[in-house]
Amino acid sequence: MKDRYLDFVNSSFGAGFARSIGLPKPEVLRRHRPDRPEFGGIVAIGAGPSPALFDPLIDVLQSIGMTSVAHGSAEGWLPRANRHGAMSGRFEPHRRDSVASDRVEALIFDATGIADSSELGAIYGFFHDALRSVARSGRVVVLGRPPETRADPRAWTAQRALEGMTRSLGKEARGGVSSNLLQVAEGADIEGALRFFLSPRSAYVSGQVIRIEAASVTRPADWSRPLEGRRALVTGAARGIGASIAGVLAALGAHVTGVDVPQASDALDQTMLAIEDQSPSGGAHAALVADIAAPEAPAELAAALLAMGGIDIVVHNAGITRDKTIAKMTKDAWDSVIDINLSAQERIDDALLAQNVLHDGGRIVGVSSISGIAGNLGQTNYATSKAGVIGRVSSMAGVLRARGMTINAVAPGFIETQMTAKIPFAIREAGRRMNSMSQGGQPVDVAETVAWLASPASAGISGQVVRVCGQSLIGA
Amino acid sequence: MKDRYLDFVNSSFGAGFARSIGLPKPEVLRRHRPDRPEFGGIVAIGAGPSPALFDPLIDVLQSIGMTSVAHGSAEGWLPRANRHGAMSGRFEPHRRDSVASDRVEALIFDATGIADSSELGAIYGFFHDALRSVARSGRVVVLGRPPETRADPRAWTAQRALEGMTRSLGKEARGGVSSNLLQVAEGADIEGALRFFLSPRSAYVSGQVIRIEAASVTRPADWSRPLEGRRALVTGAARGIGASIAGVLAALGAHVTGVDVPQASDALDQTMLAIEDQSPSGGAHAALVADIAAPEAPAELAAALLAMGGIDIVVHNAGITRDKTIAKMTKDAWDSVIDINLSAQERIDDALLAQNVLHDGGRIVGVSSISGIAGNLGQTNYATSKAGVIGRVSSMAGVLRARGMTINAVAPGFIETQMTAKIPFAIREAGRRMNSMSQGGQPVDVAETVAWLASPASAGISGQVVRVCGQSLIGA
Repeated sequence: MKDRYLDFVNSSFGAGFARSIGLPKPEVLRRHRPDRPEFGGIVAIGAGPSPALFDPLIDVLQSIGMTSVAHGSAEGWLPRANRHGAMSGRFEPHRRDSVASDRVEALIFDATGIADSSELGAIYGFFHDALRSVARSGRVVVLGRPPETRADPRAWTAQRALEGMTRSLGKEARGGVSSNLLQVAEGADIEGALRFFLSPRSAYVSGQVIRIEAASVTRPADWSRPLEGRRALVTGAARGIGASIAGVLAALGAHVTGVDVPQASDALDQTMLAIEDQSPSGGAHAALVADIAAPEAPAELAAALLAMGGIDIVVHNAGITRDKTIAKMTKDAWDSVIDINLSAQERIDDALLAQNVLHDGGRIVGVSSISGIAGNLGQTNYATSKAGVIGRVSSMAGVLRARGMTINAVAPGFIETQMTAKIPFAIREAGRRMNSMSQGGQPVDVAETVAWLASPASAGISGQVVRVCGQSLIGA
Repeated sequence: MKDRYLDFVNSSFGAGFARSIGLPKPEVLRRHRPDRPEFGGIVAIGAGPSPALFDPLIDVLQSIGMTSVAHGSAEGWLPRANRHGAMSGRFEPHRRDSVASDRVEALIFDATGIADSSELGAIYGFFHDALRSVARSGRVVVLGRPPETRADPRAWTAQRALEGMTRSLGKEARGGVSSNLLQVAEGADIEGALRFFLSPRSAYVSGQVIRIEAASVTRPADWSRPLEGRRALVTGAARGIGASIAGVLAALGAHVTGVDVPQASDALDQTMLAIEDQSPSGGAHAALVADIAAPEAPAELAAALLAMGGIDIVVHNAGITRDKTIAKMTKDAWDSVIDINLSAQERIDDALLAQNVLHDGGRIVGVSSISGIAGNLGQTNYATSKAGVIGRVSSMAGVLRARGMTINAVAPGFIETQMTAKIPFAIREAGRRMNSMSQGGQPVDVAETVAWLASPASAGISGQVVRVCGQSLIGA
């Protein structure tokens, strides 16, 4: 689905026209392209008192090849970077009259040591000086601690306050700049999350608060193919977001088994063949036709996957909508949406776990929705099912921890698909513009987020719901 | 501040005009009036399998004088009600052609026994049949369990799914009908919360999920004066929301000490005098002029309150805004907002707790904001401070539990005050209409919610944030 408005205001004629009459001009977001380097340019570093993450930060920036400049608040950064043999310098704010391009690609603030509300001035100081200096499609990342891990209520409070800052920055920054808060537990590995949030892969993820726990992390041998050799199951893979998830997982090295219903078997075959064609090393991809809601589906899926040697990743993407206000909704519309979007996931996971089809260290990712968070008119069935997916994530995270497995959900906002193309114009335009990016997301934005959660490097991330919504206004 | 549009479309000419051109017609919400009975009419009851709360529900309905009718899903309700000597009958859906007024004032669904997503059909069945039968300014209350108290992940998931249902119902119901979910722990007392959510006092509270824990609850001798004899401190009491909080607490029986800054001392005197005049039994109210952000304020407040015999209720309402995008925000604008809205609360509570000024069983209520939840453009300082208020509530709840104290926050959405009257027209109208009530709230709506949290009957409610926003679309 094309966003004609976005195309228009970014055309040479349209840009001038929009400017002359004061129309908003959504940024064309920078997304991952295999022919372009994923990282590059300069990161500006700020910090509150006693920052704990300078060393791992310097390591990650070195490993992705970004250069740092230190804001005045980041005391001690320069000597530390020098000790690691990393290039670094002092932050100079972007000046409007400067000829040279002096913008930075990202702003990172280490707030881990902030232990009292009176210390929050440091984060003001950094973003006051630096927010205007960030480039288009740039990144803001705030690093804090999970608030409840601070014994002192004042430290807990100050850490929780960072959410208001990070979300406000996401709403103030323009030009496709995202802003996210990573709550890093002591001893947690930040590389996987930092790579995701600094890269173009997280283009449409903003205003999110992500918790990273200490866990035994296997860093991929090749960060460009973190899923190398992993086997993945993707339901609803024939089209739209599911097809994109299958494609991204395969591009990152996974062997993907795509599942869809009999009616979609031709589309599924085409999708999986296209993925096969694009797999350089010839991944072992497969198309599996099954109605996931059928009573026999869990056992059949388990048997088929076991015959392939089991799997490492399950993505529950299959879902349907049957919208009506509740007074007009049929019993069948309720039952089928709950069953396909929620109960089927439960039955399938139970079968995969009981028979050890999902390997230890496995990853489960469910697809929830903004409607599951905020509720929606005409979607009592859909919103209930998608709130249930969130419940699944929180209820299963503890159960799965002992086996080194994680379970998380993505909650897409307005994504440009065949489904959203059918929404009436005015409502579609409102959905597209009511977010910090002033545009809908692409299926690939959801797929990239799923792939990040499915990575071996994401072992410390479980029980979470990551919105892929361009920081939609809508929430609860 | 008047909402002229709401007045217009509810005038005799305006109503016809609005109907003829298809304008939305916000409902004039029914609010508490001392000259009208708080409760009355009929409640329709629905239930899932194994409902746990029929007995306490019957007791509460008897005590507030509402009659029940049982939907087919509420098996066993009728004989149980009869055993309690309560009037009850069978639910008959409202028919458009009926002459008699057959609407019900409230719909209550007992979902406590729902233990699997496949059992969610019961809640669909009830609201499918009954949602259209609810009267204007009616109530939807869903009773569930705190999801994480269910050992079985499937039960946890199903309980979490109820959030999507309750929030969607709030968006579908028109005519000022609210919809809220109470998560009732085993052994928790539901009377205080049910009374609040069934009464006109909760007019602007919708789409909320409230957790009620088992706690030793002192039920008020007189439910119309639950705060009888309690001493309350209200900061920022001179005007607006603070004045309304002081007034409602006093009307419910509390002796109120209103605090405000020297510049507002005349307004504070007038507010407290007006409250004095309206207190039938002559409550011992006082005006105290103090700058809560001054370093000596905590000690001075503590001393003054101790001289009065200590207090039972603290309402941290004082707050300021100094909006600017962060690049243009001065250091002083940041510091003063954080200090007054957040750090001052911390210093004052520490002093009151250290010197036992706040009695055991005390109540602390902070005023947060939707901006603290979702962040806001031009409000990095304000949103950070209000997110910090949420952090305060979660960090202190456990600490205070041993002393029988609770701490909670209210998060107002768009409230009609002098502050919001200054917002430019288009933004003000968007803020007013982008919620399930299609209108802004009144200061009294926030005040009633504060008073409910401050009640002795709310002992089981702590660590929570209750939005008073008419189920604003805006969230995170």
